[in-house]
Amino acid sequence: MSNTPRANADRLIDSIAAMARIGALPGGGCRRLALSAEDKAARDIFADWCREAGCTVSVDRFGNMLAWRAGSEEGPAIAFGSHLDTQPNGGRFDGIYGVLAGLEVMRALHDRHQRTRRPLLLVNWTNEEGVSFAPGLTGSKGFAGLLDEAAVSALRGSDGVSFDDSLAAIGYAGTASAPPLAAYLEAHIEQGPILEASGSAIGVVTGVQGVRWFEVHIKGADRHAGTTPMELRQDSFMATARIALALRRVALGISPDVRLTIGRVAVDPGSINTVPGAVAFTIDLRHPRTATLDEVETALGHVAVQEGTAEGCAATIAKIFDLPPIDFDKGVIAAVGAAASVAGQRAQPIVSGAMHDACPLATLVPTGMIFIPCKGGISHNESEDVDPAHLVAGADVLLATVLALAG
Amino acid sequence: MSNTPRANADRLIDSIAAMARIGALPGGGCRRLALSAEDKAARDIFADWCREAGCTVSVDRFGNMLAWRAGSEEGPAIAFGSHLDTQPNGGRFDGIYGVLAGLEVMRALHDRHQRTRRPLLLVNWTNEEGVSFAPGLTGSKGFAGLLDEAAVSALRGSDGVSFDDSLAAIGYAGTASAPPLAAYLEAHIEQGPILEASGSAIGVVTGVQGVRWFEVHIKGADRHAGTTPMELRQDSFMATARIALALRRVALGISPDVRLTIGRVAVDPGSINTVPGAVAFTIDLRHPRTATLDEVETALGHVAVQEGTAEGCAATIAKIFDLPPIDFDKGVIAAVGAAASVAGQRAQPIVSGAMHDACPLATLVPTGMIFIPCKGGISHNESEDVDPAHLVAGADVLLATVLALAG
Repeated sequence: MSNTPRANADRLIDSIAAMARIGALPGGGCRRLALSAEDKAARDIFADWCREAGCTVSVDRFGNMLAWRAGSEEGPAIAFGSHLDTQPNGGRFDGIYGVLAGLEVMRALHDRHQRTRRPLLLVNWTNEEGVSFAPGLTGSKGFAGLLDEAAVSALRGSDGVSFDDSLAAIGYAGTASAPPLAAYLEAHIEQGPILEASGSAIGVVTGVQGVRWFEVHIKGADRHAGTTPMELRQDSFMATARIALALRRVALGISPDVRLTIGRVAVDPGSINTVPGAVAFTIDLRHPRTATLDEVETALGHVAVQEGTAEGCAATIAKIFDLPPIDFDKGVIAAVGAAASVAGQRAQPIVSGAMHDACPLATLVPTGMIFIPCKGGISHNESEDVDPAHLVAGADVLLATVLALAG
Repeated sequence: MSNTPRANADRLIDSIAAMARIGALPGGGCRRLALSAEDKAARDIFADWCREAGCTVSVDRFGNMLAWRAGSEEGPAIAFGSHLDTQPNGGRFDGIYGVLAGLEVMRALHDRHQRTRRPLLLVNWTNEEGVSFAPGLTGSKGFAGLLDEAAVSALRGSDGVSFDDSLAAIGYAGTASAPPLAAYLEAHIEQGPILEASGSAIGVVTGVQGVRWFEVHIKGADRHAGTTPMELRQDSFMATARIALALRRVALGISPDVRLTIGRVAVDPGSINTVPGAVAFTIDLRHPRTATLDEVETALGHVAVQEGTAEGCAATIAKIFDLPPIDFDKGVIAAVGAAASVAGQRAQPIVSGAMHDACPLATLVPTGMIFIPCKGGISHNESEDVDPAHLVAGADVLLATVLALAG
């Protein structure tokens, strides 16, 4: 046995494969919705694995599974984990990887009978995906004290059954209290193409982008496509096209790290031979800095009015969602970076484009994340795939970070 | 009584108002679908008016109403007319105006006991709008020999009843044969904004634009809006926006008279936080010259591929409809222009952006049209409206043209 504990590659990969059989889909993915029969099966096997690795498993009021490993001292724990629930047509790695990499940390230490100074806590957070019980992150938000008790009691699934009754039905309505934490770590697939494109095995996550959603309405005039000369039109779709391109140009001029998506577009009346009089479209805007989001939001207002006016159209914009950026803890970020060095892995700083359980946790304790590449950046899809070497590298870096923080 | 016969303004306006009461809608428009009970009521009153004006009314195999006024000589007639059927939420002028302006020609000559050398034929064409029995222009196409007998027999309305049975049900299944024609004239509201914008009371219609419809498919890749950097996207909507603007710029560079409309746009998967992987959209392209339509069509192929490729997307284009341009008869065009002069009306040449009953007729006999302005260019809408002075001016020009052609 070497001085540096390492993940057991075969065991990690086998556990991921075993978990993928619960709710397996024909295309190689998984459908394991939170609080479903499949979720119960996954939880049961995970609990067995944790106990076999010497952990004590308890369940809190949100159904979060807390696998505790005592330290040589009492005091706040170093926590890590992610979620076992999936999208309806999800992959076998999104969330699952962080839980089972965390399990591998527990197992590797158990193999070596190695006790850390601080206690360790591995968590399977309830309902990260929010498929049946929208909007998700229920367990991690609840743990972090970000959910109102009345709201949780009122939460109902798409089948009409309450969150609490569904938890009880699968045997995961618990009463464990939240133990004090010193830090939280989460390993996760990137769900984007950046690490793959740059050839890094590890992303040292420095924070999570802020997200703002806007709904834009462009009002022109329905006109006959045959009888209305181009110069007498108020074409709401041409106005939308101008706004889309101008806004992207302006936003990238403000910061090359902006992400701007027009994902939903409704053109009215939607007739081949009618100049469309109205378009409604959405904008998903993301950036790691609040000041930049503010600047792009202001520019959006100007661009929409200016480009709309140039086509004789009026633009109105409403912000429908606003989630501020999150900066992870500098100490935890440094610990992850150092651990990647120790593990001999090529690493790079990266900002998470998506929300994770680490986001609510970051409001509670010093938090960081470890990303590994996923093939083609594809996630929330049965074809989600990860190089096995990256699965192992991420688990090694998680283990080294846990050891560095737990002593 | 003056030497130049003129339309009786009050009678014309009263007749339009009386016709508008049949199928009247609350917003001032009309719903008088072809072969409906309302159509029957309109036909019945129109037949009475024609007989009162000294005409003989017959009905042909397509339900076209032929109001005949003998000339001092036998031989081919000068025909004029339009349609009394409307859109589901139509106006009181589209089509109706040409029929009742034609009736005013008959009435004005009847008042003066004035006989023309050639016979005159006023026609109410069946089912121009094609609402229940798509695609419309049934009567004028049938009269011009452009419809296959089997196709007419197979034609069914949206209620499942055949065209022939529906004609019989309203008492307008006829057997009259088509009389020989020397020319065809149609007065119509412009249904566009050109005459109003230029202040002309009369449009001397030189032809009808050709129409081509295309369906364009843009294929990119669905990606997470948060995790996918802008430079790694294949955003099918941004590609569509580029194609829309570039295509309009290129087409107007080829000819300023091009009309290009993107009226139907489907963005897939239509999720706020997913970079859209596929867009399907339509293009309605119109121009009076086939060579120009060909040139724009070629440019469309280049632009779609070039701008699509710039966004990492593939474009495929299919032409789904192609109607060649129509040039009206030079002699008839000149007669309309001269008649506008005689009537003291400000006139200008204009190309029709929409199809009319005159289009099938133009394949049969020398044909021309007279446009009058409609307010705001609005048509196919209850708010369709026309300045009464323009109603009278158009009838005067029609009358003068008929007299010039009929001798």
